[in-house]
Amino acid sequence: MITANTHVRVRFAETDAMGVVYHANYLHWFEVARVHLMDSINLPYIDLANQGIHLPVIESHVNYKSPARFDDKVNITAVIKETPTLRIKIHYEVTCKNNLLCTGYTTHVFINEKGLPIKPPKHFIDSLRKLFDEKKEK
Amino acid sequence: MITANTHVRVRFAETDAMGVVYHANYLHWFEVARVHLMDSINLPYIDLANQGIHLPVIESHVNYKSPARFDDKVNITAVIKETPTLRIKIHYEVTCKNNLLCTGYTTHVFINEKGLPIKPPKHFIDSLRKLFDEKKEK
Amino acid sequence: MITANTHVRVRFAETDAMGVVYHANYLHWFEVARVHLMDSINLPYIDLANQGIHLPVIESHVNYKSPARFDDKVNITAVIKETPTLRIKIHYEVTCKNNLLCTGYTTHVFINEKGLPIKPPKHFIDSLRKLFDEKKEK
Amino acid sequence: MITANTHVRVRFAETDAMGVVYHANYLHWFEVARVHLMDSINLPYIDLANQGIHLPVIESHVNYKSPARFDDKVNITAVIKETPTLRIKIHYEVTCKNNLLCTGYTTHVFINEKGLPIKPPKHFIDSLRKLFDEKKEK
Repeated sequence: MITANTHVRVRFAETDAMGVVYHANYLHWFEVARVHLMDSINLPYIDLANQGIHLPVIESHVNYKSPARFDDKVNITAVIKETPTLRIKIHYEVTCKNNLLCTGYTTHVFINEKGLPIKPPKHFIDSLRKLFDEKKEK
Repeated sequence: MITANTHVRVRFAETDAMGVVYHANYLHWFEVARVHLMDSINLPYIDLANQGIHLPVIESHVNYKSPARFDDKVNITAVIKETPTLRIKIHYEVTCKNNLLCTGYTTHVFINEKGLPIKPPKHFIDSLRKLFDEKKEK
Repeated sequence: MITANTHVRVRFAETDAMGVVYHANYLHWFEVARVHLMDSINLPYIDLANQGIHLPVIESHVNYKSPARFDDKVNITAVIKETPTLRIKIHYEVTCKNNLLCTGYTTHVFINEKGLPIKPPKHFIDSLRKLFDEKKEK
Repeated sequence: MITANTHVRVRFAETDAMGVVYHANYLHWFEVARVHLMDSINLPYIDLANQGIHLPVIESHVNYKSPARFDDKVNITAVIKETPTLRIKIHYEVTCKNNLLCTGYTTHVFINEKGLPIKPPKHFIDSLRKLFDEKKEK
């Protein structure tokens, strides 16, 4: 398991007329956490993007448990549980002051600058596999 | 099955740096389709909202098949497949010129103005059940 | 003056915790109205975009008079008042049931696919000038 | 002058199909900077919001100079230049690695929970005036 934590502070722009964060915006926070996870394992998303490689979302799932509100400081944990193959699945947990706000996941494939699916870049998948092997050894 | 179709035209604001619609924005379109579905069965969302009743999303799922782009005219079909109980599940299909862009669903509960879960309003559930019964008879 | 009207129905996604439309989202509607204005004069934005030409906003201004709320059907009028030179300025007025919600404007330049400023395409500026001349004659 | 700096890292969600941050999203960052400015002078927005008091935007203006891109770390400076009366005007400057990306301002009034305009709360305006007086003395 590869895990990283990050934080966001709820923007007024992210709330809706129910007084809580609009449900689609949790996917924005998943993105923030995913980018941070990739930084934390030294495979920053921007390096892929600069090569014209992207990781579009092919599946998203969110279970909403409790609402976030304006100015809340929320914690987002992103976790890769299995060694990626052609796809990467990332799990998320959003909490605020120890309350679980939501859980979810996104699944990604790799595409090139023409938008066509490609195999994950070798150094990317090798680095991830190495990290998983190191974790197992512990 | 209760079904309704609606259309949106892709806004530049909805695209991202991959040149396609950002994945979270499909949930906005699901909302547009859901509101339209409720209009079409004469149970407009605004009438509930004006009574302080809301239908927050407790679960969302999207399978992304093919990207939408700026200025595309996309069709969104929203479908209620089962008579709602305490929860309502709505299925969606987004297409553009006969290409399937994505499928998904959202599950909703009813809450009052204090944000507490409530039973669906009687006239709401009665109307929905009546619609389902009428469909079965056909 | 070249004028076009369009409509949007307020999405829940566009509201905020004050129960009204978040102020930045009026700029999304200005975009909708601008795209519609360009359609109406037979110079659709998508045709420029397909040639790699864009019209980024270099200035935006909004005066908010009265709030829009979920499900409101708002009217947006976009107006070009002066023949464009290197820049195009578009004025907007947003109303709902004859109430003025906001006024504003955006100023645009033309850029090529490398993001560099360019002169407006000849057919574009010629068409616009012709429209202005026709209006004057009347 | 009362000044505060804050940072945001550009989200993919904030970009558009031109590959840069969508122009309306700078207003989101102005909000982030404004909330941070209010924290920095010990008058947090959330304290007003919890009393049902809000500071809606009645005017916004942005001059876009240079685009921000995905993953950029941008700095936002928010400045109050004049002692507020019934209105507060806040100026913003967004930079990235010493490049000026945009400047702008927002003007705000105070409203109560019914959405009606009110005078600024006494402790709020007194605190702000005190800060301005202290600055002048220096």
